[in-house]
Amino acid sequence: MSMYSLGIVKRNIQRADRAAVDQLSRFGAATVHEAMGRVGLMKPYMRPIYSGASLCGTAVTVLLHPGDNWMMHVAAEQLREGDVVVAACTAESTDGFFGDLLATSFRARGAKGLVIDGGCRDVKDLTTMQFPVFSRAISAKGTIKATLGSVNVRVICAGAEVNPGDVVLADDDGIVVVPAAMAQQVADAAAAREANEGEKRAKLAAGVLGLDMYNMRGPLEKAGLKYID
Amino acid sequence: MSMYSLGIVKRNIQRADRAAVDQLSRFGAATVHEAMGRVGLMKPYMRPIYSGASLCGTAVTVLLHPGDNWMMHVAAEQLREGDVVVAACTAESTDGFFGDLLATSFRARGAKGLVIDGGCRDVKDLTTMQFPVFSRAISAKGTIKATLGSVNVRVICAGAEVNPGDVVLADDDGIVVVPAAMAQQVADAAAAREANEGEKRAKLAAGVLGLDMYNMRGPLEKAGLKYID
Amino acid sequence: MSMYSLGIVKRNIQRADRAAVDQLSRFGAATVHEAMGRVGLMKPYMRPIYSGASLCGTAVTVLLHPGDNWMMHVAAEQLREGDVVVAACTAESTDGFFGDLLATSFRARGAKGLVIDGGCRDVKDLTTMQFPVFSRAISAKGTIKATLGSVNVRVICAGAEVNPGDVVLADDDGIVVVPAAMAQQVADAAAAREANEGEKRAKLAAGVLGLDMYNMRGPLEKAGLKYID
Amino acid sequence: MSMYSLGIVKRNIQRADRAAVDQLSRFGAATVHEAMGRVGLMKPYMRPIYSGASLCGTAVTVLLHPGDNWMMHVAAEQLREGDVVVAACTAESTDGFFGDLLATSFRARGAKGLVIDGGCRDVKDLTTMQFPVFSRAISAKGTIKATLGSVNVRVICAGAEVNPGDVVLADDDGIVVVPAAMAQQVADAAAAREANEGEKRAKLAAGVLGLDMYNMRGPLEKAGLKYID
Amino acid sequence: MSMYSLGIVKRNIQRADRAAVDQLSRFGAATVHEAMGRVGLMKPYMRPIYSGASLCGTAVTVLLHPGDNWMMHVAAEQLREGDVVVAACTAESTDGFFGDLLATSFRARGAKGLVIDGGCRDVKDLTTMQFPVFSRAISAKGTIKATLGSVNVRVICAGAEVNPGDVVLADDDGIVVVPAAMAQQVADAAAAREANEGEKRAKLAAGVLGLDMYNMRGPLEKAGLKYID
Amino acid sequence: MSMYSLGIVKRNIQRADRAAVDQLSRFGAATVHEAMGRVGLMKPYMRPIYSGASLCGTAVTVLLHPGDNWMMHVAAEQLREGDVVVAACTAESTDGFFGDLLATSFRARGAKGLVIDGGCRDVKDLTTMQFPVFSRAISAKGTIKATLGSVNVRVICAGAEVNPGDVVLADDDGIVVVPAAMAQQVADAAAAREANEGEKRAKLAAGVLGLDMYNMRGPLEKAGLKYID
Repeated sequence: MSMYSLGIVKRNIQRADRAAVDQLSRFGAATVHEAMGRVGLMKPYMRPIYSGASLCGTAVTVLLHPGDNWMMHVAAEQLREGDVVVAACTAESTDGFFGDLLATSFRARGAKGLVIDGGCRDVKDLTTMQFPVFSRAISAKGTIKATLGSVNVRVICAGAEVNPGDVVLADDDGIVVVPAAMAQQVADAAAAREANEGEKRAKLAAGVLGLDMYNMRGPLEKAGLKYID
Repeated sequence: MSMYSLGIVKRNIQRADRAAVDQLSRFGAATVHEAMGRVGLMKPYMRPIYSGASLCGTAVTVLLHPGDNWMMHVAAEQLREGDVVVAACTAESTDGFFGDLLATSFRARGAKGLVIDGGCRDVKDLTTMQFPVFSRAISAKGTIKATLGSVNVRVICAGAEVNPGDVVLADDDGIVVVPAAMAQQVADAAAAREANEGEKRAKLAAGVLGLDMYNMRGPLEKAGLKYID
Repeated sequence: MSMYSLGIVKRNIQRADRAAVDQLSRFGAATVHEAMGRVGLMKPYMRPIYSGASLCGTAVTVLLHPGDNWMMHVAAEQLREGDVVVAACTAESTDGFFGDLLATSFRARGAKGLVIDGGCRDVKDLTTMQFPVFSRAISAKGTIKATLGSVNVRVICAGAEVNPGDVVLADDDGIVVVPAAMAQQVADAAAAREANEGEKRAKLAAGVLGLDMYNMRGPLEKAGLKYID
Repeated sequence: MSMYSLGIVKRNIQRADRAAVDQLSRFGAATVHEAMGRVGLMKPYMRPIYSGASLCGTAVTVLLHPGDNWMMHVAAEQLREGDVVVAACTAESTDGFFGDLLATSFRARGAKGLVIDGGCRDVKDLTTMQFPVFSRAISAKGTIKATLGSVNVRVICAGAEVNPGDVVLADDDGIVVVPAAMAQQVADAAAAREANEGEKRAKLAAGVLGLDMYNMRGPLEKAGLKYID
Repeated sequence: MSMYSLGIVKRNIQRADRAAVDQLSRFGAATVHEAMGRVGLMKPYMRPIYSGASLCGTAVTVLLHPGDNWMMHVAAEQLREGDVVVAACTAESTDGFFGDLLATSFRARGAKGLVIDGGCRDVKDLTTMQFPVFSRAISAKGTIKATLGSVNVRVICAGAEVNPGDVVLADDDGIVVVPAAMAQQVADAAAAREANEGEKRAKLAAGVLGLDMYNMRGPLEKAGLKYID
Repeated sequence: MSMYSLGIVKRNIQRADRAAVDQLSRFGAATVHEAMGRVGLMKPYMRPIYSGASLCGTAVTVLLHPGDNWMMHVAAEQLREGDVVVAACTAESTDGFFGDLLATSFRARGAKGLVIDGGCRDVKDLTTMQFPVFSRAISAKGTIKATLGSVNVRVICAGAEVNPGDVVLADDDGIVVVPAAMAQQVADAAAAREANEGEKRAKLAAGVLGLDMYNMRGPLEKAGLKYID
């Protein structure tokens, strides 16, 4: 099943291991992105609809057409506890594909939130519900239900590839996608990365310079850096 | 009097019926936009200067030149209780046409807020005053007072037509313009639209799918949707 | 020393007079920009990473390459109490050049905050720290340490020239740069400008029109403004 | 009939006087825009699909939905010799609503060209046909035929109001809309404006300065301009 | 091998069938995009660097870092007759990663052209060489050679997934990616699609309306379209 | 004299050495930018108004206000043979500050062309005249003559600092600014840079790889690059 199929709903998908997802959920997007080797990040035009929104879960993907949210209803049925809906669009659109009624439905089906490369509306209600949404736009403009897209096919969302079942983790810093098969490995790498951050932070807070802590003076001199008065 | 007139101030305008405006003020921009038949929405680049800002009132329109806010002072005199100033610009500009002094004056004259296809400044003071402004930009850059525009002519503001006296309603989701003559009819349609939202929300919260609630399964099958495992 | 030098760190810079900086810090960016004669403002795409962030201090400048934050560590050593780091980039980049570890280091060295024509990450931590950052983007994407830029050379940051030691003042309305030699003069002009704002505000709040307070009716009539009914 | 009606086709429209349109067609967009008093210009993001494209005719308007070009076929039937199709969209869209087949049909019905606040495709064929199109984007992405818009209602296209029958004139400099009722008056103003351009150009080519030809030295001195060495 | 690997060069890739590529090369991007079922199109911000540029070939992919073109030289060695280089970037960058020297090398190795989600320079020379490049920007800014990316891994380029060996076809209308395994099937569908275009064009040129040719009048009436005078 | 002065015209400026300017004029913008050490480049949103436009000359600078071109006439008087007008604006503006009449005047005074961080109009006439203009936009919208800016002060134009008398060189690849005092040195560096380009091009055309010509294989291996099949 690939991104080259319209009119398809895949029911059985291989979700990332729940324990690995839980471990990943303790880290921020920046840390996970580093742990991934700096790949899998969506474009920075994607922003949370309210300050402090965050989410981490397994992707149920949706491929939409501009101005048409029919497939969002189809996706609702495929949701399980802990999923995140990831909605891509076949062309750039800022229309409000999603609002509080769909959020109510998604939440009832177990969803943790939504990532959509399109618009969102009912921001006030969604904030009250604390239903996290990351979108490219906010717009009151509604959508029609006329054209088939797909559910649970591979999609490109805001410049990142998302396969059904992948881990999607989002916070104020951005949205990162971890392939299902790499979830545990990335969680371990993230943990290792954070392990010595406390020590580094303490040193820096005490006035130690990164120049010294990271031994940069030699390489900088070798690169030709000159100090003048 | 049309948008093709510069140097004009129209004093007597036909404001939308007050009772209809009050009724409209109870609804969100998304609901009113739907009730309008999905027309009359400004572009989504217009954003509130502080989170949670909203307004609803009758439009006093202003046509500005880039970098010149002279007409804002002329508009102040035309304000009545319950008005909203809608400022359009003859070319794209992010300059700060509006700040806390004008806000003080507008409020003293009865204004509910401002919608401006340009920049705004003094955001901190305006937030303290809770004077709602929806703008395309925030900028400290001030403006001059050198060129005539117009007040209370028809304007195109952020892609929407606004006639003096029209109802302008804005919240986190966007800004919608209701022609004065349609205010009551749109208020009624909005009320009808919201009437059964509570029931729908309850069903969705209980886990009923939109697929079933909206009887979408038949049309989706007819359109060719295929489920695979 | 000019912007046309890469691989240079200037250690001794002429910082603006501390007393003048303190006086400037009492004013908003819009007021200072007016007091400057409406020059020295950065582009409005620069935004605070959290609502209400503000800063005022003397510039330590950094010239970065896209995706490379090596020079930020070099800059840390040059910081003194009351400085603000101003980071420009040789090409447009939204990468996350800055996060909470660098913020910890900068603060330990006395920095008041950061202005960066690039991306920032660790927004949640920076908000908790209340370390003010003004940036063109927020992005989880990290950077490498491979190429020499410069520290304390003249830079163009978001369209404004910044020389080391200049006063940089930022709040919700924008970011304004005051040349070190003009700091006292601009502080005085800002004070003069605010002196009679209270009186103006009181008059406007009482319903006096700007048309009358500023004697605009004559000039408007002379310019040809026509009132119609 | 207004912009607030969907699902409407108006058959009888009042086209601008043919002789006035012919006179206007001799001028450039910049000249006509000046003759209009600097109103009625579309946003500068609208560009010709090939260098040198230009058009002048009477508007048949179309209101489209994003990704849906059904109404373009409805519009074709309403075309008469000398018309220009002006297509607006209810939300921003870059989809390719128009290609060589529709161009063939439009031309067969007498159309002079197309102005569309959306995307266009088949650029190579349209260039070969020399069928002028001004659009916001070029995109190979096709559109569906599912939703009713309207034909010959008032639309807002790229920030300008267009009523059916208005004169639309476009060239490399932009697109200007002349209300049908003002066509002759604007043509006369444009002619007057161009009358003495030749003389001015000759003087300037001979080295006479605008400072002297327009008598600007006095006003500049009065405004405070200072010459230094 | 996936997009989640940096520092990798895959030497043996499965290129699309040559005969199918040749057949595809006879069609325009819009036709091929339709034949694909309207998927696989890059974003419309990608533009040819000279008017009339077009290309069709099998993808050799490159994953670059912003401001670093080291991998382009690595890619050159992997090129075979009929290939197209497709360069993605780990973050948005407009730097000039490519110029006439690399073009000379790519052409000597058999390349048909370049698609790059970044900047290009030496436009004048590339135009003289008639070496087709489709890019997001043109910029004189050069790049460094410091960081490993990858060659012949799956990349996301301008919103489209590209696997090594896929067919990439670009012209004035845009850039479409055909998976290698679907090349023949899409070529056949494109041929079928064009088969009756001539007949349609002739009818439309003779004045037959699309309304009649496509039997749209019934569906439009059923959808509620109303004609008024 | 600095960028912090409005209402100033500096008459005597130190132009770059004519012979050095002539030497620089033989190179492209990319080559000169490299010879400068990759600084001094304007942002890539600046584009020529017609294909193939290029210019090289000494800067006469103008600081404009949005929508006001008064200072362009003041600048005309300061022009000498071989100058290029460089116009910056105190806020972003796309208005058409410049057209064929000013071009006629500038040419009569010896100007080689215009670089403007704003809009331009009369593109057809300017193309016929072959008067090169590099601008951020094309727009028919005219400007007023009401506010003082400055002539021959230091300006920031499209992100680059320009001092009166600096060399400005522009072609399809971009616009680069060479400080007057560095003109000869940069011309020499550019010549050295081009000296062995012909030999490199010949090698690459013969199929030699950059990997070998630049001895990259060792560094790539050391950086960890892996080849797989």
